[in-house]
Amino acid sequence: MTDALLEAVSGPLTVFDLARQLRVGMPQSHNHPQFWHTLPRRHGDMVRPDGGSAANDMITMGTHVGTHIDALAHVSQDGVLHGGADAGDSCLGGKYVEHGVHTIEPMIRRGILLDIPAFLGEDDLPGGFEITPDHLAQCAEKQGTPVRENDVVLVRSGWGKKFAEGAAYMGHSTGVPGVGEAGAQWLASHNIHATGADTIAYEVQHPGAPHATLPAHRVLLVESGVYIIEAMDLEEIAAAGVHEFTLMLVPLNIYGATGSPVRPLAVVSA
Amino acid sequence: MTDALLEAVSGPLTVFDLARQLRVGMPQSHNHPQFWHTLPRRHGDMVRPDGGSAANDMITMGTHVGTHIDALAHVSQDGVLHGGADAGDSCLGGKYVEHGVHTIEPMIRRGILLDIPAFLGEDDLPGGFEITPDHLAQCAEKQGTPVRENDVVLVRSGWGKKFAEGAAYMGHSTGVPGVGEAGAQWLASHNIHATGADTIAYEVQHPGAPHATLPAHRVLLVESGVYIIEAMDLEEIAAAGVHEFTLMLVPLNIYGATGSPVRPLAVVSA
Amino acid sequence: MTDALLEAVSGPLTVFDLARQLRVGMPQSHNHPQFWHTLPRRHGDMVRPDGGSAANDMITMGTHVGTHIDALAHVSQDGVLHGGADAGDSCLGGKYVEHGVHTIEPMIRRGILLDIPAFLGEDDLPGGFEITPDHLAQCAEKQGTPVRENDVVLVRSGWGKKFAEGAAYMGHSTGVPGVGEAGAQWLASHNIHATGADTIAYEVQHPGAPHATLPAHRVLLVESGVYIIEAMDLEEIAAAGVHEFTLMLVPLNIYGATGSPVRPLAVVSA
Amino acid sequence: MTDALLEAVSGPLTVFDLARQLRVGMPQSHNHPQFWHTLPRRHGDMVRPDGGSAANDMITMGTHVGTHIDALAHVSQDGVLHGGADAGDSCLGGKYVEHGVHTIEPMIRRGILLDIPAFLGEDDLPGGFEITPDHLAQCAEKQGTPVRENDVVLVRSGWGKKFAEGAAYMGHSTGVPGVGEAGAQWLASHNIHATGADTIAYEVQHPGAPHATLPAHRVLLVESGVYIIEAMDLEEIAAAGVHEFTLMLVPLNIYGATGSPVRPLAVVSA
Repeated sequence: MTDALLEAVSGPLTVFDLARQLRVGMPQSHNHPQFWHTLPRRHGDMVRPDGGSAANDMITMGTHVGTHIDALAHVSQDGVLHGGADAGDSCLGGKYVEHGVHTIEPMIRRGILLDIPAFLGEDDLPGGFEITPDHLAQCAEKQGTPVRENDVVLVRSGWGKKFAEGAAYMGHSTGVPGVGEAGAQWLASHNIHATGADTIAYEVQHPGAPHATLPAHRVLLVESGVYIIEAMDLEEIAAAGVHEFTLMLVPLNIYGATGSPVRPLAVVSA
Repeated sequence: MTDALLEAVSGPLTVFDLARQLRVGMPQSHNHPQFWHTLPRRHGDMVRPDGGSAANDMITMGTHVGTHIDALAHVSQDGVLHGGADAGDSCLGGKYVEHGVHTIEPMIRRGILLDIPAFLGEDDLPGGFEITPDHLAQCAEKQGTPVRENDVVLVRSGWGKKFAEGAAYMGHSTGVPGVGEAGAQWLASHNIHATGADTIAYEVQHPGAPHATLPAHRVLLVESGVYIIEAMDLEEIAAAGVHEFTLMLVPLNIYGATGSPVRPLAVVSA
Repeated sequence: MTDALLEAVSGPLTVFDLARQLRVGMPQSHNHPQFWHTLPRRHGDMVRPDGGSAANDMITMGTHVGTHIDALAHVSQDGVLHGGADAGDSCLGGKYVEHGVHTIEPMIRRGILLDIPAFLGEDDLPGGFEITPDHLAQCAEKQGTPVRENDVVLVRSGWGKKFAEGAAYMGHSTGVPGVGEAGAQWLASHNIHATGADTIAYEVQHPGAPHATLPAHRVLLVESGVYIIEAMDLEEIAAAGVHEFTLMLVPLNIYGATGSPVRPLAVVSA
Repeated sequence: MTDALLEAVSGPLTVFDLARQLRVGMPQSHNHPQFWHTLPRRHGDMVRPDGGSAANDMITMGTHVGTHIDALAHVSQDGVLHGGADAGDSCLGGKYVEHGVHTIEPMIRRGILLDIPAFLGEDDLPGGFEITPDHLAQCAEKQGTPVRENDVVLVRSGWGKKFAEGAAYMGHSTGVPGVGEAGAQWLASHNIHATGADTIAYEVQHPGAPHATLPAHRVLLVESGVYIIEAMDLEEIAAAGVHEFTLMLVPLNIYGATGSPVRPLAVVSA
């Protein structure tokens, strides 16, 4: 065995699963088709002469529900996608041929976790709290995990603890903490590859005005070509104090879609 | 940087994408809900006051369409799942709590490709051709890639070239090449973790009798607890002559489902 | 023209549409898959050489959303459906062969509206208000519309005004007015064919305990074989003071389903 | 009882169900999302403390599958809908606000069946057979059922007998009989309200060139504002020799959709 990667994975690994389980009824944005799973066929519905039986599933969902990645085709500004493509023309026959999720390469690269509440000495950030460039820079420095080009930068707000509570996680009345426009510009200026968070819409949401505008989406997806990963589960990895890791993320290769459910992993040699 | 894995992935990698692109109209079994993707909202449908606009998707599909993994809950024999659980009782509230796809751990482990047509000096295997234990053992030996415990073993038939042809790939009239009952037993006897193929149902299908019985599924899923990966794209990796690699496969964490679409990768240090 | 029915419909008719419009985001029970409508293909996506273009749709939904009818297979009591069929055995291959919605004959028959708030001299009934046999009997008498065998009896609570408000219509915290167990027994004792209401679950719901038990469903569907129609729009017909009419209701003929969206009409010779 | 309609329906009626049963696997166009029905919850999955249990459904489908009606928004010609509306602008936020299926009023009106094979003394019409104005006019005359303004005119080809055969019904290789461009113009010239047939696409399809162009759709939907009903079951009513009746057809009120599944009835006073 001479392959360096295979040698590395043959040793003990610690794998942090950064995705939420897909369950009917989990919190998600009302803008997107609800996740649903059902069994068209259960064991016993149709049994083969030899006693074998197969059960199967049907799922229906938006691609921006559960833990997911936004393709660059997800957001346009003034009718234009990242790189200047016309947002209308980029949709051919009902598929975003340009910048669709099928154009995102699988990610196997350095990831870092910026644990903002830990940096601030808080349990959690309150609804509406904006994570600034100073927060990001100082957290990275304190952790000893500098942001490097092509990294995947995960920003923890602690809001993910509310996922099990449903509506509270959406934060329509309370707002949701997150990176704001300035923070997004700071991240983009480091030429990162992707960034993620433990909230439904990545960026700070102000109380009572969810999704009114999404400036961080504009900065990241349209102006900078940086992918966004949302609704991540960052609690376990934060509790373990792991801030640097190999990030593995493989979107479904859905032709022409604007996003995909994903199950990102953070992996370290144990 | 002292993490061995992170060091390995920081060097040059060659990534083989082993999944088919999910496209409306691609070949799939009629037993499973058809893959469909549509855009409820396109750019311009709703524009925010600041000129921003978001497009989004709806997908609906079975979990055994496109490249996918079978959970152990997928198949029962005589009313019993792997390990003896009652197939009826294992379904609680419409979810396969036991052996559902949510119980499959993400895979980052040694994978090997047994390229049977190359071993036989053929371009392809014909419909209905059964891959035997001798084929598997001799191919592994000739390739210098012994089957080891906990491996993921991918068996190429070459049939995957027909994927773009649609109905021909399903092979209802021609049959489909693949591992038979004996081959499945040989693989299971090596205590492998999972096995995959480039056909829709993994195992050999005889002409005119598709899915009549599925003995390899019984041996692997029910008797041995070995996961099955279907409808893989093994053409590119075979053309590159890569027979040993790190296999990365992360199923969606769908609570209680019998399978999941996946996008497995074979990765080598380039 | 000698057909009596054709002669009748050839004269002026007044048609009351008793169904809610199916719109994404309308209020519905979280127990049922959400209604969603999207356009896979819009005009211009694919234009034929002669300049023609077709747009089309995808819908996904539960069958108990929007205005809908409950088939007898919808509810069981102690494992038994109406008439004594075993609820488990009645499901063959994932279809309710017995008492599925495909067994409901199209309805073209006498319908009456019991307008309870009008009878009580109220604008509306409050959440949790139970409509009793006395209410039903006295309202029918006051209106001059006796309940007859094989009728479809629509019971208006006025709660339907809240449909546009969303969550308020569901009434989880407030309760919802409606017929209770005794009222259902009174209706069933008149051997009616079906009964409907302007609320999401037909029967009275107590504040804070929605769907805890559904005794009127048991009495009507299981014990009496009386179909239930839910989420009707009874406002326009009530405002017009029409209490007796020809009720036309045609469920979709979905093999083995427990319900169907419907668009019932109340028609009178104008 | 003084209402003429109620009096008419209180006498004996004969009801012909003109719709196909919605079943998983039934023949339908590949251009439209497949009909699927599944049970998320079966009896026993969740039992209330009092022994009650409810089963429910999920359906997913295109609106142009099974027996269905085409709204005027379904087809455009040179970018224009019926009446001159711009086909692009008519779609607001992903809904065909103009000419969507929600704009079709429920139909309770005179219907006639033009039984072309019976008129020609044939059992069936062959694939690709075009029904001409002469066929329509002479059949109506022979039957004694003149085409009148505002009628719903059903044109039987006999092809519906193949519905149970699946692919044969689609007729990709054989063609399908039906009204051609001239026949559509003849029907439109009589200012009818709607027209239907027992085939998947209403109009004649030539062997090997299904859906290449759809001139009758253009004439009816775009130029004339005449609704089209497809995939009807006209066998039973034809066998009964009933050629004039009250046609009842109530589309689902789906906001902004281009069509709806329907279950049309032909009713006569028995």
